[in-house]
Amino acid sequence: MSNILNIGLLGCGRIGKLHGRNINASIPGAKVVRLAEPMLNDAHKTWAAEAGIPAVSKDPVDVMNAKDIDAVFICSPTDTHADFIIQAAEAGKHIFCEKPIHTDIGRIKEALRAVEKAGVILQIGFVRRFDHNHKKVRDTVASGLLGKPHLIKISSRDPEPPPLEYTAVSGGLFMDMMIHDFDMARYLAGSEVAEVNAVGAALIDERIKQYRDVDTAVVTLKFENGALGVIDNSRAARYGYDQRTEVHCEKGCVQTGNDLIDMSMISTAEGVLCERPKWFFLDRYNDAFIAEARSFVDAVTNRKEPPVSGKDGLMSVYLALAAGISLKENRSVKLSEVMR
Amino acid sequence: MSNILNIGLLGCGRIGKLHGRNINASIPGAKVVRLAEPMLNDAHKTWAAEAGIPAVSKDPVDVMNAKDIDAVFICSPTDTHADFIIQAAEAGKHIFCEKPIHTDIGRIKEALRAVEKAGVILQIGFVRRFDHNHKKVRDTVASGLLGKPHLIKISSRDPEPPPLEYTAVSGGLFMDMMIHDFDMARYLAGSEVAEVNAVGAALIDERIKQYRDVDTAVVTLKFENGALGVIDNSRAARYGYDQRTEVHCEKGCVQTGNDLIDMSMISTAEGVLCERPKWFFLDRYNDAFIAEARSFVDAVTNRKEPPVSGKDGLMSVYLALAAGISLKENRSVKLSEVMR
Amino acid sequence: MSNILNIGLLGCGRIGKLHGRNINASIPGAKVVRLAEPMLNDAHKTWAAEAGIPAVSKDPVDVMNAKDIDAVFICSPTDTHADFIIQAAEAGKHIFCEKPIHTDIGRIKEALRAVEKAGVILQIGFVRRFDHNHKKVRDTVASGLLGKPHLIKISSRDPEPPPLEYTAVSGGLFMDMMIHDFDMARYLAGSEVAEVNAVGAALIDERIKQYRDVDTAVVTLKFENGALGVIDNSRAARYGYDQRTEVHCEKGCVQTGNDLIDMSMISTAEGVLCERPKWFFLDRYNDAFIAEARSFVDAVTNRKEPPVSGKDGLMSVYLALAAGISLKENRSVKLSEVMR
Amino acid sequence: MSNILNIGLLGCGRIGKLHGRNINASIPGAKVVRLAEPMLNDAHKTWAAEAGIPAVSKDPVDVMNAKDIDAVFICSPTDTHADFIIQAAEAGKHIFCEKPIHTDIGRIKEALRAVEKAGVILQIGFVRRFDHNHKKVRDTVASGLLGKPHLIKISSRDPEPPPLEYTAVSGGLFMDMMIHDFDMARYLAGSEVAEVNAVGAALIDERIKQYRDVDTAVVTLKFENGALGVIDNSRAARYGYDQRTEVHCEKGCVQTGNDLIDMSMISTAEGVLCERPKWFFLDRYNDAFIAEARSFVDAVTNRKEPPVSGKDGLMSVYLALAAGISLKENRSVKLSEVMR
Repeated sequence: MSNILNIGLLGCGRIGKLHGRNINASIPGAKVVRLAEPMLNDAHKTWAAEAGIPAVSKDPVDVMNAKDIDAVFICSPTDTHADFIIQAAEAGKHIFCEKPIHTDIGRIKEALRAVEKAGVILQIGFVRRFDHNHKKVRDTVASGLLGKPHLIKISSRDPEPPPLEYTAVSGGLFMDMMIHDFDMARYLAGSEVAEVNAVGAALIDERIKQYRDVDTAVVTLKFENGALGVIDNSRAARYGYDQRTEVHCEKGCVQTGNDLIDMSMISTAEGVLCERPKWFFLDRYNDAFIAEARSFVDAVTNRKEPPVSGKDGLMSVYLALAAGISLKENRSVKLSEVMR
Repeated sequence: MSNILNIGLLGCGRIGKLHGRNINASIPGAKVVRLAEPMLNDAHKTWAAEAGIPAVSKDPVDVMNAKDIDAVFICSPTDTHADFIIQAAEAGKHIFCEKPIHTDIGRIKEALRAVEKAGVILQIGFVRRFDHNHKKVRDTVASGLLGKPHLIKISSRDPEPPPLEYTAVSGGLFMDMMIHDFDMARYLAGSEVAEVNAVGAALIDERIKQYRDVDTAVVTLKFENGALGVIDNSRAARYGYDQRTEVHCEKGCVQTGNDLIDMSMISTAEGVLCERPKWFFLDRYNDAFIAEARSFVDAVTNRKEPPVSGKDGLMSVYLALAAGISLKENRSVKLSEVMR
Repeated sequence: MSNILNIGLLGCGRIGKLHGRNINASIPGAKVVRLAEPMLNDAHKTWAAEAGIPAVSKDPVDVMNAKDIDAVFICSPTDTHADFIIQAAEAGKHIFCEKPIHTDIGRIKEALRAVEKAGVILQIGFVRRFDHNHKKVRDTVASGLLGKPHLIKISSRDPEPPPLEYTAVSGGLFMDMMIHDFDMARYLAGSEVAEVNAVGAALIDERIKQYRDVDTAVVTLKFENGALGVIDNSRAARYGYDQRTEVHCEKGCVQTGNDLIDMSMISTAEGVLCERPKWFFLDRYNDAFIAEARSFVDAVTNRKEPPVSGKDGLMSVYLALAAGISLKENRSVKLSEVMR
Repeated sequence: MSNILNIGLLGCGRIGKLHGRNINASIPGAKVVRLAEPMLNDAHKTWAAEAGIPAVSKDPVDVMNAKDIDAVFICSPTDTHADFIIQAAEAGKHIFCEKPIHTDIGRIKEALRAVEKAGVILQIGFVRRFDHNHKKVRDTVASGLLGKPHLIKISSRDPEPPPLEYTAVSGGLFMDMMIHDFDMARYLAGSEVAEVNAVGAALIDERIKQYRDVDTAVVTLKFENGALGVIDNSRAARYGYDQRTEVHCEKGCVQTGNDLIDMSMISTAEGVLCERPKWFFLDRYNDAFIAEARSFVDAVTNRKEPPVSGKDGLMSVYLALAAGISLKENRSVKLSEVMR
């Protein structure tokens, strides 16, 4: 490995471009030097040139097997993640993989075994752990300042629903959206979840019912350490990306509001008008994406434990599955039930 | 009835004194002229003199049957409420009764029948409906400005647990504490609850387990209008009385924070220190108690529907019972199950 | 003096009624038993009956000389204050007097001499010192927590201008409005002002120029302890009564925002709408008026120094005069210049 | 000019590095290709390599005269600005110059004449105009929504004083610090200043008196459009960079608070602890620096008026000079007095 970590990027969609640009612009110790994108077109090539990525290809194998590559960023569609992890691990590359690893537990376990066997580092893309706000909540809880956590609360609402076609293949609200919040819940509580209970409804767009999906949901959690939790999700917060967390503890409570577009107040006879939360994840979590990539580079370069492990990736999928069963069968579901 | 509504006060505990003082100090159209308190002592007498209540007695009957009395305020222990409602109704007095009406559904129904038969006005003491903050949330939802409600959220936490002996007889967290929030949920949603699901734990003081009670709980709600809801309760918010409500709707979200001790900010190298929520309900809901009593006086004087009815009192008890079953049996409970 | 402090009220205008009602409703240790109002009419009599004031009269002398009166509240027009203080002092009554004592320094000094000679207690009605917010700012500074004060800032804006006729006789913006802020500045800084510098303009209503008055003004202050200060005033804050104070110190800064109508937030695609400051002084300073009266009753009953002295009343008038000269002559004015 | 604007950077201190890095990382339409730094050392060379700047030199002339250079960023010490502007203009390069242009009016005028003669674009580095918060205040005022501005208020406080040696050569608080606020005042008011009045004191560090400088100051402003203004400065806000602006208008008020380190609240029995403002200008104005450079690139590329002109640079120096005289002579100073 040279002094600079050479990275190969797999996938040139929205999230791939975001990581590619962030690394080459903001992380001195790493450089994206190869890109593979099966649907490669001129726009991709132009983007790669501007981002300073010299080599582009249609074939992921060109990246996996390249001798000059130390690590890969897997930013391709979810159903390719497990395969790419296995290939990259076998090629001895360190791996950053976007969430979720896969929606099938068997495939996830295969991927994690390949990683373990190869002894490479794997980090999963739960970017919210790197947000200054949520991190402050978690660090405050972890510091012990407030005593034991009693109640973990997460509000997580997207500004607008994704296209209906996306919903059809995404695995549903629990798997594509609340999965972030399941990870956040474990992160904030410092404990595994023992049991979940879900309620949900199609309140924004009835057509989503054909996919047996919901667009609004509340899930309660019982943690192994005794704490309780609750997550609410909505696919439509017309005022912006609403991402708030709160932990009520023995001696007090820590919570975070949203980052706002600006800190203005306009006072008139009609009221006091303030700005809305930042619009969506590209705005709200921009700095978090950079911190996330930096932490991966640091883990690889300095042979540290990555801050979000393969196990974290697995546990959040278990939680999404359990919530799905709970909603469908209208009953509490113990995590042990889906983990057997 | 004279121009001034003459009121008889039943019970001279904390809440009785509060209503007595408020009415005589702040409500020109009404006057507390009689007090009955079975444990009557000198302190009660002194208080009554200062509050301008000329007649005091040990026997509630002295108040019920007094010709100069137009209405009674029932501020005695919960287990006396139903009897006093029946006696007052039979005496033709209008009735303000503190919550809950009773913990036994049969007794509540008897009381409501007596009220209906007598044609008197009955208002139940869900004071939070009169708080400027929660009322603003509800009025915003009811105005239709934000479209249909999707998600009703209530955080309700006491600053410190009551004495253990109180817990032993109170009916438990759902009946003595969350009952306020059940009423608030119905008030905010503008809909009845169809189903509840409760999780709870004894996290603050383990001794509460001997009463099969919990001190921390989260209850999810499904409303008849399709909306979802969630209430969280804690018996110990060391920073003060934490009372927040939020309704996420089709077109936006309305929420309210707490009233604070003051609006100061002290900025130092260590951080920015603001004040806490007001300490407890006597501070936070002081103005709401006055507005509540005023609304009762207005309803009686002008023969209006009282803003909180006997049915409201009954429904909140159903909800508390359903939550209790849900917690005990770890399953969803339809409201129809407890209402049969 | 009986156990209860018997108070005579002079003047039954807005502020007189406010004090009368507050004392009889909220201060157990005192009672307004007499009222004198030269323009006495039926409305005044009805009000007095409702407020529990048994004796009413047209002649202030009936109050001053009444044997059963321990103290008077002077709530009459400004030009009568000095005379009434002198008469009350000579009759041996303790005195609460609304601000300003008088606009003429000679008359003020006469009044203070009479008070001193009689050995009665005199408190001036600078009610803002009793507001929970400003008091917190001052107490934080006085505690020494933040080190020496460097910069005192006061924003003080009325929701709407008074009638033009009022302006004609009020003594102008510095004497009728900023006089509160001059007192606040001295209170917060814990120091006397040495020099003032005023700028002002007629921006809201040009007709005010005929009275050589302004409706918008900024005054800088140099304090004897070296700190600097600045006050801004506007006669028209269409969003409500805007009353903010701030002290920037060696080790940090303490500031206070306004009390709001409620703590709601309504988030939509258009923005986040919060409530405005309380509308005017009757709303914002209601609790402060009660605390103020209570402090006077306490000072008289327990023979303490009153929290706002005759000297405080005098100093604020000096400051208003100095600011007037500064504005007119467009130059700095040392306080010693008007005090000689 | 190629499609990409080629930029030469003059000066490799803190602000030079900031602009260099921002342009090469975040502005696709421009590239810093040359750097001149008279004190060039290995650290500078390493930085340039990492930032992607291929050519480095000790001699500014190497940048000025390079054929491949379209524009220069002058980030050298203040006393070189005028010379570099003149040289760059004569070489036909467009110019971005950090504030202030110079502390000597004659030298500024020479520089502006050279720019005019050469027909190149000159933009001055008043970065705060590009901050999302202040820009929102200004845009709200400029929109006319609130009617005419009456009162412009600016609080601007550094977290800690610069080294004493810096103060000795900086031109003093008005020239090196408040100059930003003078520009902000003109920007917010949409009007020129007609008259200033300054008070100031050495409250943080007495040694500053030897330079006849102050570390705390309040300056009032009269604008040509009739509005009033006030700026307060402190060299030591121990809680972070305090940068607030406010415009009180005919129909309401617009103001902005600070960007905070995060949006957390920690509630305990001791109070509610929030985060402080971002520490200093590199944190607070990071995005504004990028927007500023982008606006310059846009102005040059599309031949637009630059958003901050040479005249803006000149006017702020006039204001600093006038404030200096006002402080020294303890009197109001008309701007016409220093502009003749």
